[in-house]
This record gives sequence, structure tokens and C-alpha cells, in this order.
Amino acid sequence: MARADFRHLCPLRVRYGETDAQGVVFNANYLLYYDVAITEYLRALGWNYRAHIATGVDFHTVRTVVDYKAPIRFDDEIEVGVRPGRVGNSSLTWALEIHPSGEDRPLATGEVVWVNTDQASHRPTPVPADLRAAIARFEAGG
Amino acid sequence: MARADFRHLCPLRVRYGETDAQGVVFNANYLLYYDVAITEYLRALGWNYRAHIATGVDFHTVRTVVDYKAPIRFDDEIEVGVRPGRVGNSSLTWALEIHPSGEDRPLATGEVVWVNTDQASHRPTPVPADLRAAIARFEAGG
Amino acid sequence: MARADFRHLCPLRVRYGETDAQGVVFNANYLLYYDVAITEYLRALGWNYRAHIATGVDFHTVRTVVDYKAPIRFDDEIEVGVRPGRVGNSSLTWALEIHPSGEDRPLATGEVVWVNTDQASHRPTPVPADLRAAIARFEAGG
Amino acid sequence: MARADFRHLCPLRVRYGETDAQGVVFNANYLLYYDVAITEYLRALGWNYRAHIATGVDFHTVRTVVDYKAPIRFDDEIEVGVRPGRVGNSSLTWALEIHPSGEDRPLATGEVVWVNTDQASHRPTPVPADLRAAIARFEAGG
Repeated sequence: MARADFRHLCPLRVRYGETDAQGVVFNANYLLYYDVAITEYLRALGWNYRAHIATGVDFHTVRTVVDYKAPIRFDDEIEVGVRPGRVGNSSLTWALEIHPSGEDRPLATGEVVWVNTDQASHRPTPVPADLRAAIARFEAGG
Repeated sequence: MARADFRHLCPLRVRYGETDAQGVVFNANYLLYYDVAITEYLRALGWNYRAHIATGVDFHTVRTVVDYKAPIRFDDEIEVGVRPGRVGNSSLTWALEIHPSGEDRPLATGEVVWVNTDQASHRPTPVPADLRAAIARFEAGG
Repeated sequence: MARADFRHLCPLRVRYGETDAQGVVFNANYLLYYDVAITEYLRALGWNYRAHIATGVDFHTVRTVVDYKAPIRFDDEIEVGVRPGRVGNSSLTWALEIHPSGEDRPLATGEVVWVNTDQASHRPTPVPADLRAAIARFEAGG
Repeated sequence: MARADFRHLCPLRVRYGETDAQGVVFNANYLLYYDVAITEYLRALGWNYRAHIATGVDFHTVRTVVDYKAPIRFDDEIEVGVRPGRVGNSSLTWALEIHPSGEDRPLATGEVVWVNTDQASHRPTPVPADLRAAIARFEAGG
């Protein structure tokens, strides 16, 4: 994939504390970037996460995958592309890709899978209709 | 101070993810070590933090200080000495010191100040008598 | 899998700083645990990582996967089982699984894929024979 | 102090992974914010950190202090004010203060002390004249 495949790109700059003794971003910290990018995507949708939680449900992360393609270093300016992959009944799979700012070549790709969970029963519950609609609208360009 | 000045030493081994691109432990991560050491000190006292919180209060960290003396590197075995400094009416000051395992020379010193806080009023409230007693007993060698 | 499927179990206790506002270990921090567990596995082998690096090569992480099965909370005592999965020509796939201390039910599973890389050419290079031998010996029970 | 006391304010938004089980930013993570703010201050000066290191010296952090005034929560928009306090012969003391975005009340204050260090001898060495000049110019409004 390339930058044009994402309607949302989250710009970030690598912090010193995110590097490790190899001089590159430590592998776990890519998941910080993915998490920030998903948060910003939902903000871009105009969807209200706090109102979602107030209904007694919450998204739990059930799977994360990172494929590391090229090292990322201190002070590098990067963009995290994020878009919904499969939207299941109760699950939502995010596709992620990190690029150098303004470039197409991927530094990393990955996915994060969320399951909407009823906080009382701890059981999966459908992805809310307003989120499905907001995603469809945003990805359709509007 | 030296190791013998602490009745409690918390052993730790530096994780790769705690280092930065200078090849040493990143400055913020010393506060992780201090936090773990205080947790283990309270466990050594046999004092029950969960029961404390259940009474509607909690300790808030109001000040942290770290003095960095010598670099700490990946895989280093260290000990964090911890002991209560001043125990005020509602505050509790922890004195901390990191040494290489089994050695006296300090790699870092510091302090962490806690204030016991009523969770309803958000106001300082006295350090509980059972914690004062447990500290006094432990530091007296018993 | 269960605890008995791992010849190496790395014991850890959850640190407060590893939790998030949901009250559970933040998703990225599972990769910290996996990294520590692999480090301890290599130590258990008696294999010398520093001597490895001194030959002008290093392992790069090219893929990480975490499947989250049940929440992990502050102060929980856990064990991270680690064992080599596929050992390819230049790659080494680690299988990981987190359990509550002494219990069989998995809290998380996952994998970490390393590629041995020549630091001058940045190209994959074979997994060293001494590491293959050490792994084979350890997994055979010796 | 207030916002107007800082010629440089670094805007940040709290990431979910920076919170802890109390629902607030974990104490160690304030030092991440301070570190980012100093990096951005030096960038605002137009001073070249990489060229500095290339001369065989580097700044080491020798002391950090954080005074926590009010909790900071997930998704909060904050500003980190940063300015040089005392500039000694080989040391540089940074004064820091966190505010809610656009507000004067401090959420935290603190300081970070750096010592310029010769990387060969490991001894303190004078703060370079070009950095002193750049700071003086910037703080004078130019």
C-alpha cells in the first residue's frame, strides 16, 4: 500500500525516549504509534468515544501485528496511515502503515483488532451502528 | 549513603526497552524503578495497599527528584534502596538510591513525595496510623 | 499450549507504570514482556549475545504478533513461556505465551520473528551454528 | 509562573499509553514531556544538536525534578513551557511548566539539569558559545 490508500494520515515525530540502544525505535513503541493513529482517526470521523463507553461497552484489543520494514530513528518525521479493514459483527480490524513524512515507502505495516465488549457480561457485542455509518461516510470521502 | 543504610533493597535487571539511543537507561525510566521499589517496600512491610484504597483515600505523587550519578546500561543488575524519609501529617517522603548489585557506589539517588488524599474531597488527609506503625516496626528491624 | 510446553518460563510481576486507564496492562507493554522473556531464554541457554554482536551481525525484529486472551492487572504475577518455533536460514521465530503464575490458562500468546543481519551490508545472514546447537541442546533437555 | 513567562510552548496531547490505572498520566511520563519540550526548544533556536555531538561532546542529564500540581488525563491538550534557567560553565538548567492548552494554571512544574560532557574523557566541558548565543538571542525576542 501507499499513502494514497489512506484517507487519514497521523503525523508524528519520534521522541528520544522511544529509541533503544540500537539507536532505533524500540519494537513495542510501534504499538504506541498505532494506538495514537486510531485515536486520531476516530476524532477525524467526529465519532464520540466517551459517549460510546457511557453506554456500558468498550473496545478491547484482542490482536496486534507489526511488520517492521526499515528502521525508524530519533527525530524522524513519520506518518501513520490508518483505515478500517474488516468490520465484523462485534470486531473491527484496523490496517496500519508507517511512512516517512510525504513518502510512499512503508517503514512498517500492521493491524490492530478490536472487539466491542459489554462491560457487565464481558461478552462481545455488536459494533454500534453510528460508528459503522461514520466509517462508511468518511471512507467514501465525505 | 550506601547499601547498609537501606533495610530494603529491590533487585532489578535493566530491560532493553528501558535504554535509549545513547545506550543507557533513559532518564524517565529511573522513576519506573523508584515506583517498583516503593511497591516492593510496602509489600515487605506486609501493609495492604488495596485495603488502604478501599477506605476512600489514595496516595498521590506530588514530587519526584532524580540525581543521575553514573550511566546504567542494558542487562545491568542493580538494586534500588528505598526507605521512608520524612513522614509528615499527610505526606510521606521516600528516599531512593540505585547501586550496582552488591556494591555501595550510587548510580542515582532521588526522592518521591506522596500525599495521602481523600478521593471524595480531593484534600490531604493524615497518613494512616497502621502504615506509620508498620514503617516504624520495619525500620527498627522487626 | 500450556506451561509444560515450555522449557523456559520467565517470571514477572506487573508494574504500575505498565497499566493504563482501563486498569489493565497497556497493549504495547506485552511486547516488553516478550522481549525480556527472549533475553532470559538466551541467558538460560548460556549463549553469549555480546559475542554475537561483536562478529558484526545483530538480530533485527521483523515481525511481532500478540493475541490478547484475558486482561492482566497491576501486581499480577505472571510467567512468560518462550521457545523457538521455526529456525530458518537467517530467521528465528519465537513462540510466546503468558500465564498466571503456576497456571496453564493463557492470558496472551504471540510470536516475535528475528532476522540475523550483517551490520555492514544490512543483508540477512545465517543464524550462527553455535546458537542452533545451544537451542537444540536446551530443548532436548540438556 | 504563567504561559507568558515562556517564549516557547510545546503543544502535546496525552496518549492513552501514557496513562495508568489511576486514570491519569503516570508520574514517569512527565519526564517524556519535558524531554520532548527541550528538543523542540532547541529546534526553535535553530541550533544543531547533531553538529554538537559530532564535536565529541554530549549533554548528560544529571538531575530531574517534577512537581505535580493537578492530574492530567487521556486526550488532554497541554502545553509544556520551557526556558533556560541558569546557564553555568558546563551545565544548563531547564525550567519547565505544563499548562492546559491556552490556560495559565500550572499542572506541573520542574527542572532538568544537563552537563556538557566530553565523550572521550567523560569530564564536564563548557557549554558551547554558539548555544549560549542562540539562547540569548531567542530569549531576547529575536
